[in-house]
Amino acid sequence: MCSVSPVLKRIDADLQNSIARWFTLLRIKSISTDPAYKDDCTLAANWLVDELNAMGFTATRRDTPGHPMVIAHNHDAGENVPHVLFYGHYDVQPVDPLELWDTPPFEPEIREVNGQKQVFARGAADDKGQLLTFVEACRAYMAVHGHLPLRISILFEGEEESGSPSLDEFLHDNADELRADFALVCDTNMYDAQTPAIDTMLRGMVYEELTITAASRDLHSGLYGGAAQNPIRVLSKILAGLHDDDGRITLPNFYDGVEELEPELAAAWQALNFDADAFLGAVGLSKPAGEVGYPAQQQIWSRPTCDVNGIIGGYTGAGAKTVIASQASAKVSFRLVGDQDPHAIRAAFRAYVQSCLPEDCTVEFTGYGADKAVSLPRDMPQILKAQKALSEEWNRDAVLKGIGGSIPIVGEFKRVLGMDSLLIGFGQDDDAIHSPNEKYNLTSFHKGIRSWARVLDALVG
Amino acid sequence: MCSVSPVLKRIDADLQNSIARWFTLLRIKSISTDPAYKDDCTLAANWLVDELNAMGFTATRRDTPGHPMVIAHNHDAGENVPHVLFYGHYDVQPVDPLELWDTPPFEPEIREVNGQKQVFARGAADDKGQLLTFVEACRAYMAVHGHLPLRISILFEGEEESGSPSLDEFLHDNADELRADFALVCDTNMYDAQTPAIDTMLRGMVYEELTITAASRDLHSGLYGGAAQNPIRVLSKILAGLHDDDGRITLPNFYDGVEELEPELAAAWQALNFDADAFLGAVGLSKPAGEVGYPAQQQIWSRPTCDVNGIIGGYTGAGAKTVIASQASAKVSFRLVGDQDPHAIRAAFRAYVQSCLPEDCTVEFTGYGADKAVSLPRDMPQILKAQKALSEEWNRDAVLKGIGGSIPIVGEFKRVLGMDSLLIGFGQDDDAIHSPNEKYNLTSFHKGIRSWARVLDALVG
Repeated sequence: MCSVSPVLKRIDADLQNSIARWFTLLRIKSISTDPAYKDDCTLAANWLVDELNAMGFTATRRDTPGHPMVIAHNHDAGENVPHVLFYGHYDVQPVDPLELWDTPPFEPEIREVNGQKQVFARGAADDKGQLLTFVEACRAYMAVHGHLPLRISILFEGEEESGSPSLDEFLHDNADELRADFALVCDTNMYDAQTPAIDTMLRGMVYEELTITAASRDLHSGLYGGAAQNPIRVLSKILAGLHDDDGRITLPNFYDGVEELEPELAAAWQALNFDADAFLGAVGLSKPAGEVGYPAQQQIWSRPTCDVNGIIGGYTGAGAKTVIASQASAKVSFRLVGDQDPHAIRAAFRAYVQSCLPEDCTVEFTGYGADKAVSLPRDMPQILKAQKALSEEWNRDAVLKGIGGSIPIVGEFKRVLGMDSLLIGFGQDDDAIHSPNEKYNLTSFHKGIRSWARVLDALVG
Repeated sequence: MCSVSPVLKRIDADLQNSIARWFTLLRIKSISTDPAYKDDCTLAANWLVDELNAMGFTATRRDTPGHPMVIAHNHDAGENVPHVLFYGHYDVQPVDPLELWDTPPFEPEIREVNGQKQVFARGAADDKGQLLTFVEACRAYMAVHGHLPLRISILFEGEEESGSPSLDEFLHDNADELRADFALVCDTNMYDAQTPAIDTMLRGMVYEELTITAASRDLHSGLYGGAAQNPIRVLSKILAGLHDDDGRITLPNFYDGVEELEPELAAAWQALNFDADAFLGAVGLSKPAGEVGYPAQQQIWSRPTCDVNGIIGGYTGAGAKTVIASQASAKVSFRLVGDQDPHAIRAAFRAYVQSCLPEDCTVEFTGYGADKAVSLPRDMPQILKAQKALSEEWNRDAVLKGIGGSIPIVGEFKRVLGMDSLLIGFGQDDDAIHSPNEKYNLTSFHKGIRSWARVLDALVG
């Protein structure tokens, strides 16, 4: 085992260069869901390929029907050490509403907030900042020791924020090249700003868009109001009917496969003293709004949800327009846990909507990603090793926790490649990922790089 | 009384010039609700002032805190004939969604549809085409006879499509100048393409915009979903709760002042053989969607309504975004009948919304126009005279009907100036006013001008 101390020193000494590289990647507008940014996504992939090759990986861009993948390998560490596959994504969320950003989303800026240096940009955390913590750790390790401690393969995706349409086929087609002993994924948060964490439970997701059409054109609400079906009213009623008064989701069989938390884990989570008031208070809320009878921690980690992510219909400009729209649309997503079947839930949702449609209304659906929830074996040896390494870097016991967001790749790795994934990330709850003014703490970036150096070192044995 | 025949001949001979003037007015983008078009509104007012002065009226532009009014007078007909005030509005509705227009909304074009010449443009009917039928009738009358048959004053407004914020004060400030024996208003439809009509019942309206705010910023639906309040869900539930299963509006005391149709009028309306199937079928609908138990004709003419005119919240671009919005907004309007009090209904709506708000949600309201419904005395002598004149022009008995849209000016004229209004218009139900591809039949324009010449002549006696 190579000593990690000189690597940590090298990381500290090279930090300004690491930040400069990070900023270069942040300036690339790799919004995957919007076709207008297709070339930017390719640009981000190319940049990563060039960086990895320059470091000593063998890296290539792999084109897909959507945005390209990046694959890189360095197996110089030999057959006696584990082979890991690191995963991250270089694509980012859209930036609207742009007017809420304090600085332009693709012009990264360091600002000191409450005595803490933070980098503001779309993707600062999710996932460009996070994936670079791993890349920069590898860079330092190779610079100091001439090789890596493990056999390392890397997969960077460019469609994570838009439902990963090309991923499944790509994993199948390249299974032999990508299969490793286990995967490392850096797309998650610490427990808090001082406490590192490994995620062992991940919610799944199914995402639907629906458009309801009534009349063949927009109508004057004076001439037609009263007699004409209003698709916004119909849509509102459909959305309102998705929850009962206790915040439970009303779709038939929705809770099939949802189990109460096992007592041991419930106790461990309770011991974390999750501060729901602080968690909600940071975003201007005070009361957990989910299922009655479950604490906020379970509402976000281990209970399923249904949220309307967007809605539009009729006149939405300034002033008053007396129109009855011919169409109204919404985007609706379900976060899944346990053994919930995303395909069954998609079907139940569509059947429910159809059953609500009054005469003269039709509906069109667009389905996006559908991913089952994931639960990792909490006594996996790699988890225990990584936990120790993280605890040493942060001088705080690393905790095992759940995560409300979906990281579909974890399920895919298990299903297609038979690999478990170690989920280690350095994001904070206030990073505002997917929102205006996304940021990543400079501490997350710096100690994140140091953490990976320690984790890689620990995983050798 | 001057003979009307030479005037009708003159109208026929001058039709091409009348159309050219109409097109000039249609090319002016006088969208009153959008501040970006403020100068265009002034341009339209100036054009009307110039035209009226050139014809022999004394016309002036009168600036207001909003868009200007146009006032014109010609009282050469002397004291022995009635004094009428003609009202129209030169402002138009917004044009979105622009992509649904077959030709640009401000480039008028004549197209033959089903053997009928139609002029397509925003405002072709509402209200530029309609108000010009009166102007062109006056022009022909003056050209033939050197003077008008009545003392005529004209008021053109530029804020009808945005709630007429300046109107009330303007009428009060200029009451003596504007007061006439009665008003003539051209902003309504014929009963059908062959049958002229005078409207004797008009619905009122109250219009509200509400914005619900939950979290202080947009949230990631994975990290916060389940625990965070979702304002789109809250809004959907509020909107869904406005109607019961029978299509009745649920606000307390909403139906105060709403009376069943008097049997005599109900019988007259039934005799019109209103074709609900055709009315709805023309816009792709088949079933009256309003209050159970009322025929479509009453649903649109004599029953109150509540419609959501617009809604927006969260991510509405292409693809999937996993966001919980911090805000969601809707525009909601109520059509009023009988003695319903718009101010009481606004208050009831706001109280209802407040009562629905869960913890952590706040609401902001913006109130737009609030107008009571109007019912004219059906045996008013002017109505009977105009009915005869219209019947002669169209060779069809002119019918007395109701109208679902609000024409707030009628209530204002009654309240502020003590005048009744004669509502005569030549629009068709398929004119698509407020929608893409608004049009006005060339027949409506031509025979509308001829109709006004006959009506003015008939009103002398």
